[in-house]
Amino acid sequence: MPEMRKDPIVDRWVIIAPERAERPNAILRNRAEVDDEQGCPFCPGNERMTPPEVLSRRPPGSQPGGPGWTLRVVPNRYPALRTETVMSREGRGLFDLIAGVGAHEVIVETPEHRGTMADLPAEQIESVLRAWQERIVDLARDVRLKSIFAFKNQGVPAGATLSHAHSQLIALPVVPPGMQEELRGAKRHFGEKERCVFCDIVGQELRDKERLVHESERMVVLSPWAARTPFETWIVPREHRSSFESSSGQELHAAADALRALLRKIDVALEKPAFNLYLHTMPLRENNNDWYHWHLELKPMLQQHAGFEWASGCTINPTPPEEAAAFLRQTEV
Amino acid sequence: MPEMRKDPIVDRWVIIAPERAERPNAILRNRAEVDDEQGCPFCPGNERMTPPEVLSRRPPGSQPGGPGWTLRVVPNRYPALRTETVMSREGRGLFDLIAGVGAHEVIVETPEHRGTMADLPAEQIESVLRAWQERIVDLARDVRLKSIFAFKNQGVPAGATLSHAHSQLIALPVVPPGMQEELRGAKRHFGEKERCVFCDIVGQELRDKERLVHESERMVVLSPWAARTPFETWIVPREHRSSFESSSGQELHAAADALRALLRKIDVALEKPAFNLYLHTMPLRENNNDWYHWHLELKPMLQQHAGFEWASGCTINPTPPEEAAAFLRQTEV
Repeated sequence: MPEMRKDPIVDRWVIIAPERAERPNAILRNRAEVDDEQGCPFCPGNERMTPPEVLSRRPPGSQPGGPGWTLRVVPNRYPALRTETVMSREGRGLFDLIAGVGAHEVIVETPEHRGTMADLPAEQIESVLRAWQERIVDLARDVRLKSIFAFKNQGVPAGATLSHAHSQLIALPVVPPGMQEELRGAKRHFGEKERCVFCDIVGQELRDKERLVHESERMVVLSPWAARTPFETWIVPREHRSSFESSSGQELHAAADALRALLRKIDVALEKPAFNLYLHTMPLRENNNDWYHWHLELKPMLQQHAGFEWASGCTINPTPPEEAAAFLRQTEV
Repeated sequence: MPEMRKDPIVDRWVIIAPERAERPNAILRNRAEVDDEQGCPFCPGNERMTPPEVLSRRPPGSQPGGPGWTLRVVPNRYPALRTETVMSREGRGLFDLIAGVGAHEVIVETPEHRGTMADLPAEQIESVLRAWQERIVDLARDVRLKSIFAFKNQGVPAGATLSHAHSQLIALPVVPPGMQEELRGAKRHFGEKERCVFCDIVGQELRDKERLVHESERMVVLSPWAARTPFETWIVPREHRSSFESSSGQELHAAADALRALLRKIDVALEKPAFNLYLHTMPLRENNNDWYHWHLELKPMLQQHAGFEWASGCTINPTPPEEAAAFLRQTEV
């Protein structure tokens, strides 16, 4: 069964999720992206290859578990964490352990096997974001779950194992240190200035202009000041709101438009790169507040995390965010 | 010029080190590993292709800057940070910046173009570790530099751009957050228990045995309890010592032996994987103390940092460290 282990020195949780493998080095062999339309578990007609769906969008008359859907959410067949696990906490000498309680779901974004999220119409991307919202609201009912991450890995170098367009949700029984630090930083800024740090960033970027990629009535797309990797880009709603779940349909629509514009720009500028996309929102069941602000972060996968990054926690970025933003601004789609 | 930028929300420094490129997307093209013996800047006879050496091991009569050496240390041709930079700190609205003062050196580990560190005799690996020591002691004289990382990327997937066996040193004008957190964690443990957390870990692993890979009179090689990635392995000296620079020749010899044994085991078990190796030691010029303990960490590069890892700071590891350790223990070399 999966478990979460805490490092005895630093505040770091790791999910140990053993794959069923005869030999521990089987990991050498299971990285290839499956691009077989016949055997694709996300294609219409192959619904039985996944666990039963927890959400689907279907026209009237279409039966759950069969084809006809335009979007489908299913539990991951190889979950990193499981809802069926009984919650338990344990210490073993120096070492701490929590049972791997959590949820791991897959959002199949389209019935089309070919094509990527960038190829979808804005309405379909909005439907994906709305599915994230609905699943977050539903999973929040399990009080053992403390935080949730929606994310998307596109392309093998970004960690994808299936090519059919999909995103994922992982809900955790802890608020992991990476998220805690962001919450702490935002709270500290508010404590000092009585202002949201994300609203402040949006304000400065709109004045400075040089790291701005795209703006619309409701969304700002920017290269962050301390971009960790080349072409890291954030989508931040102009209106202050802590939790993604409480965003209106209009806001989701604007986010989908901005995301589509960004994906099409990076596809042209960087020749359809592999990428990671993820959502940062408040921990589950926590109220909206004045100091945290949901947003999306996108990182094209153009270089490896290497020895220096692992050693120091610093990253080396050869592309100044001002240059990345200027290049993306000029890219016509 | 390179610069270090601080994220306005979290305690994160990023090195922005622009490569000279006409277009920002030139990064798409410069990832191939150069394996051309003729044009290899680390091969004997090609000494002019690197900046002048700052350290070399040569037999009597051999001239600096020419061939004949067995090991050579040179400044990186494309440094992430530079010693010539004038120290300056700046705020731009919300954003903070330090000039990219630092050092970035390359240790050419052998004159042989073919072969890896695992192929070197233990005495040569010891000579590499001694070169790390000597360069750390020398760079510590520059009081602008606060911390230093010695590391090695082997293989393209691990971030290597040249195949000739080499390691690197980066000295920073800050103690980066990743290291600060480890120092803080070790200090907290000592504050609570009056014991070094690394000594405690070594003690528990020697009793538990299940995460032990290899042990010698002076070194313990183990899979850490909360291994972030498959086959992450640490080499920890049995004797408590905070800074690597103050290790004796006997200890370096033992570390080289343990490292060689580990590299040969992972080469057999994981079919010569790409890997990252790095040193964790005290910040520069800080005295030895009772609470921190230098060590080496090795991470074979078997899977990508993907969306969930970037989003949450948690990693998902499909290989329990107990299984990795048992597999490496059984691997004959």
